[in-house]
Amino acid sequence: MALLETGKHWQGSVLSSVNPDIAGERQTASFSVEKLTALLDGGVEQTRMRRAVAEAIECDPEFSRENQYFQSQNERYEAAVRKGVHLQKKMREMGWTEDGPEYKYIYRALSGDVAFLLHSIFMRSISVLGSEKQVTKWIPLASQYRLIGSYAQTELGHGTYLQGLETTAVFDSSTQEFILNTPKISAMKWWPGDMGRSATHTVAFAQLYIHGKCYGVHPFIVQIRSLQDHSLCPGVTAGDIGPKMSFEHADNGYLMLQNVRVPRENMLSKFCEVQPDGTYRRLGSQQINYFTMTTVRISLISDEVITPLMKACTIAIRYSVVRRQSKLQPGEEEAKILDYQTQQEKLLPQLATAYAFHFIDHYLQELFNRAYREIQRKNFDMLPELHASSSGFKALITQHCTSGVEICLRACGGHGYSLLSGLPSLYTKILASCIYEGENTILLLQTARFLIKSFMAASSGQPVPPSVTYLAAVKPRKCPAKNKLDFLSPDIYTEAYEHTAVRLIRSTAAKLQDLIQSGVKKHDAWNQCTVQLAQAAKAHCHYITVKNFVETVERLETKAGIQKIMKHLCDLFALHGIFSNAGIFLHDGYLSGAQMDMVTASYLDLLPVIRKDAVPLVDAFDFSDKSLNSALGSYDGQVYQRLYEWAQKSPTNTQMNPAYERYLKPLLHNTLSKL
Amino acid sequence: MALLETGKHWQGSVLSSVNPDIAGERQTASFSVEKLTALLDGGVEQTRMRRAVAEAIECDPEFSRENQYFQSQNERYEAAVRKGVHLQKKMREMGWTEDGPEYKYIYRALSGDVAFLLHSIFMRSISVLGSEKQVTKWIPLASQYRLIGSYAQTELGHGTYLQGLETTAVFDSSTQEFILNTPKISAMKWWPGDMGRSATHTVAFAQLYIHGKCYGVHPFIVQIRSLQDHSLCPGVTAGDIGPKMSFEHADNGYLMLQNVRVPRENMLSKFCEVQPDGTYRRLGSQQINYFTMTTVRISLISDEVITPLMKACTIAIRYSVVRRQSKLQPGEEEAKILDYQTQQEKLLPQLATAYAFHFIDHYLQELFNRAYREIQRKNFDMLPELHASSSGFKALITQHCTSGVEICLRACGGHGYSLLSGLPSLYTKILASCIYEGENTILLLQTARFLIKSFMAASSGQPVPPSVTYLAAVKPRKCPAKNKLDFLSPDIYTEAYEHTAVRLIRSTAAKLQDLIQSGVKKHDAWNQCTVQLAQAAKAHCHYITVKNFVETVERLETKAGIQKIMKHLCDLFALHGIFSNAGIFLHDGYLSGAQMDMVTASYLDLLPVIRKDAVPLVDAFDFSDKSLNSALGSYDGQVYQRLYEWAQKSPTNTQMNPAYERYLKPLLHNTLSKL
Repeated sequence: MALLETGKHWQGSVLSSVNPDIAGERQTASFSVEKLTALLDGGVEQTRMRRAVAEAIECDPEFSRENQYFQSQNERYEAAVRKGVHLQKKMREMGWTEDGPEYKYIYRALSGDVAFLLHSIFMRSISVLGSEKQVTKWIPLASQYRLIGSYAQTELGHGTYLQGLETTAVFDSSTQEFILNTPKISAMKWWPGDMGRSATHTVAFAQLYIHGKCYGVHPFIVQIRSLQDHSLCPGVTAGDIGPKMSFEHADNGYLMLQNVRVPRENMLSKFCEVQPDGTYRRLGSQQINYFTMTTVRISLISDEVITPLMKACTIAIRYSVVRRQSKLQPGEEEAKILDYQTQQEKLLPQLATAYAFHFIDHYLQELFNRAYREIQRKNFDMLPELHASSSGFKALITQHCTSGVEICLRACGGHGYSLLSGLPSLYTKILASCIYEGENTILLLQTARFLIKSFMAASSGQPVPPSVTYLAAVKPRKCPAKNKLDFLSPDIYTEAYEHTAVRLIRSTAAKLQDLIQSGVKKHDAWNQCTVQLAQAAKAHCHYITVKNFVETVERLETKAGIQKIMKHLCDLFALHGIFSNAGIFLHDGYLSGAQMDMVTASYLDLLPVIRKDAVPLVDAFDFSDKSLNSALGSYDGQVYQRLYEWAQKSPTNTQMNPAYERYLKPLLHNTLSKL
Repeated sequence: MALLETGKHWQGSVLSSVNPDIAGERQTASFSVEKLTALLDGGVEQTRMRRAVAEAIECDPEFSRENQYFQSQNERYEAAVRKGVHLQKKMREMGWTEDGPEYKYIYRALSGDVAFLLHSIFMRSISVLGSEKQVTKWIPLASQYRLIGSYAQTELGHGTYLQGLETTAVFDSSTQEFILNTPKISAMKWWPGDMGRSATHTVAFAQLYIHGKCYGVHPFIVQIRSLQDHSLCPGVTAGDIGPKMSFEHADNGYLMLQNVRVPRENMLSKFCEVQPDGTYRRLGSQQINYFTMTTVRISLISDEVITPLMKACTIAIRYSVVRRQSKLQPGEEEAKILDYQTQQEKLLPQLATAYAFHFIDHYLQELFNRAYREIQRKNFDMLPELHASSSGFKALITQHCTSGVEICLRACGGHGYSLLSGLPSLYTKILASCIYEGENTILLLQTARFLIKSFMAASSGQPVPPSVTYLAAVKPRKCPAKNKLDFLSPDIYTEAYEHTAVRLIRSTAAKLQDLIQSGVKKHDAWNQCTVQLAQAAKAHCHYITVKNFVETVERLETKAGIQKIMKHLCDLFALHGIFSNAGIFLHDGYLSGAQMDMVTASYLDLLPVIRKDAVPLVDAFDFSDKSLNSALGSYDGQVYQRLYEWAQKSPTNTQMNPAYERYLKPLLHNTLSKL
């Protein structure tokens, strides 16, 4: 017994104590973590409220994510529905409403995995696209969950190109109905969330035909399942599209319609209606439809894209100060891996990126709010800029955050690859953000179209929207920096980004014109420039992000050390961008090779400076352990003990070995038939 | 009934016909696909044999992967054990042996998901590290599966830094045993495959202590489970480490040892032994240990890294010629997405990369074979070059292939994100290759150390290994290209790569020396250069890859159009590398901005040229539909029908909706308590 215990003294749980390797990191913070958290939240009161919501949700066992990494798709779906239903109850209990200030914190606290998100989109689409009568009829039913809605736009054959949707809705004036059909397999609705197994109704988009003439894509409310017993309605085939890389909790579905009839009143008709005799009337502007897409795109950036990167940084940086591996100096104890330059160079730029995007998200929200106020005054002038910005930034942010989460995962080595680290599920989920709500390349090209137009306008002296006035300005053609410290001057690096964005837009515009003048058809010419157009759009958004970070830092209070550390992060973000995209800065000699060496030196010098505050900087994101759900990222830094305790709960350990009796025993006992 | 059938005419399976959109792509191949396949296989006879092995395995229902995407970790594990056991039987039936020519094709045909791979490593480590007596005792037992072996090296706290392993083995001369212990939690073995649930024995690495003195890490054969009933042996705690991002089929395990005693004879003692009185004797060289690691690293590149990229290219390119979306010209039918420049620019460089790495793999195999012949003659001179090459190329190839698979996945939009596309599982699995068998950054730094040493030697006129003689050569300091066609000359771009590699190695060596001369300690100086050292190592490997591709193309027969298309791919690979890493080529003015524009023009011009042969080029990889296991990538291009048919087999459709009775019905019927 004594022998057995020799090796056992460390086996008691140490999860009540904080690992001294991480505790030490917090004692030397150069700024107030609590004040930075309040800054990120938008104020002390917001922090209080966010924490109260998180507390209420995280303490409720119905919302537990404890076994999430062990669950099958069916289990995840069931849990998401349970949570979705329970959330209704919770909101009533807590007095939270969909219009209330707490609402925006709920989703963050739930960390996804809740059903009925498409039910909200169903309601929003009716509110935006429906007539007053339709809103009055459907919204109360939906709010009270007397039906469950979905939103059926994407088809097997069409995602980005909405005009190409193939579902048909033929008006039958004799019965005052639309007859909906899925005329070929590519027309099958595919991907809509909440539709595979839950929804009773959906807003389905279909090509409207009246008397043989096509009027384009319109939205129709279609019942797909019985409200009594949930069986599929006549003519409806629907189901789940099967396993995906993530979103196991969501019943993304397929839907096939065979002569499904809906009454004339079910076409959403705020902007266009079909009269009883088949007369088609367009009411008001179509442009507002883009505005809805823009809303969704902007609203997802924070919760679905930036938050995951912040979580990944928190996990990877905390792990990197408790993981010790190899020695920096012979004879010393093993070094924390965050003390290696290569580890700093992986993680700290991601941290700076998370801050940069948090601030650009504010910028986008403000742009959106301004545009919205104008729209309410029937002024649609800001729509092109808003559309271009929401498209380009959605692409830039999702791309960088996805790549950032992957870097964090890989920087944690083998343990990062375990689902228990929390990193794989962050990665597989954020990856989808590069595809949904507009595929990134398509979005960048939409931004590019706006930039080319704006450049042409600015070049001929016409007025352009504020974010692109820089295209007209004349600036020096060489960077004036003389030494590496000059590159810590925001003017120096902001101008380098500005110059590069202008150059890329200008040269691509010139290539486009040359091609057209040489006789290439306009569409072919555009296609031949798309690689460079996408690059130009990225450069524009990158520039605006740097500029906005600089302006945000300037506005910060100089107390509490926050401005100083934010300045370091801003410098790092900017210089990392130049270091990683050196070619576009060197191309026309705006930066010389010698200046690029200065950039590199300043960039690498910043790493150990920010490294000192790395843990406080992720602590300021203020994620609870439950919210991170990571064996590597917990506040106390007890990573090995937690990995071990969590692994023991895996069904691979709690269930009998399914293979022993059947395969291993006969193999070892040499009793396999014919072996 | 008639009504119902209206929409149903397309619902019969069309899987017997080939989609005309993909059939057309094959009619215009500029080369013989069959001849290219034979070239890739290394000869017509190899192709025949590979196909015969694949056929035998794919026709055997025991090896089916049909339901793989729907299975839980437990089910995947059970299937892998079943296949592992069945494979023994199959090999006897087919007359395949582990030394036979068919053996290397078996793993490719199985596409992973088979147990007992670590059993092979167990055997290999005994063969390499064991004494003759040990080999005679253990190898027959293992070959007959009278035991199941694993290989326990990595611990919770140590992966790359093997000297830091914490498991202890104390010699007890009174009983002639070693006493093995896991003295702290970080010393727990963690990750070994086949160990969590299957293995009965393992080779465990532990710090050897004799009379209180530590002799470093040594390998010990330890029994962990009973051969009778598979229960854990006394003092052994073991289990599965839980879910990972992939490798669901593998029971990666943990192992804790508490005063586990093994006889003195269980320390593998080819290179060192402990005599009965505790005298420690080292026999022969330690260097050979590195050689084993090198073997593993080189052997995994083809099957685990290049093959997945080839599969991903096959899936994404075939999908991109049947997916039509939007229009290139107004009024035309929707275009195949591979006709868009941006799609070509995503996929075709990955295709070129797959070919480039296939050829560099040959180069590495040859280097390995030469080194092996020398070693057999007790000449270890080639080991440093071999170690540096295997390290650097492992890092470069795994990184590029991982990123390439991700690009292919994203290029397929939403459908690529479905597990049914086959792409997510390729991605999550290949990602691990960046971490296992040496974390990539560490490996690049090992290559860099070799390069710096070689550079110093070459600079002072000493002889250096063949792959680095270029470091001593004096070459022009400006690229002589005058127009974009010049960049299709292999001499021009190969020299650009060579120049850049030399420059990066030289400048980093200079920085390192400057730091040391300014008084920075050697280890600190090294750490401060590691970001640039890793970059230099990548540039070296990239250069060798380009050079090897060029030389391979030169050696090809000029018939059958193969040399011509390979030349295009080689050009594309080289120019894509310059385009994507423009900064390092522009930095010292070796390429001017105007020349970079020529590179870009030539690069973009190549895309539509290679696009014409894209489908034949992936057909030549010769993956069967079963091997791809992809609804998007099948030979016949019937993607939508297949997605639909496969989705219907998902447990989310075949099992009752678990949430309806419990949650949805009460919600819809408004009978939820307290709601």
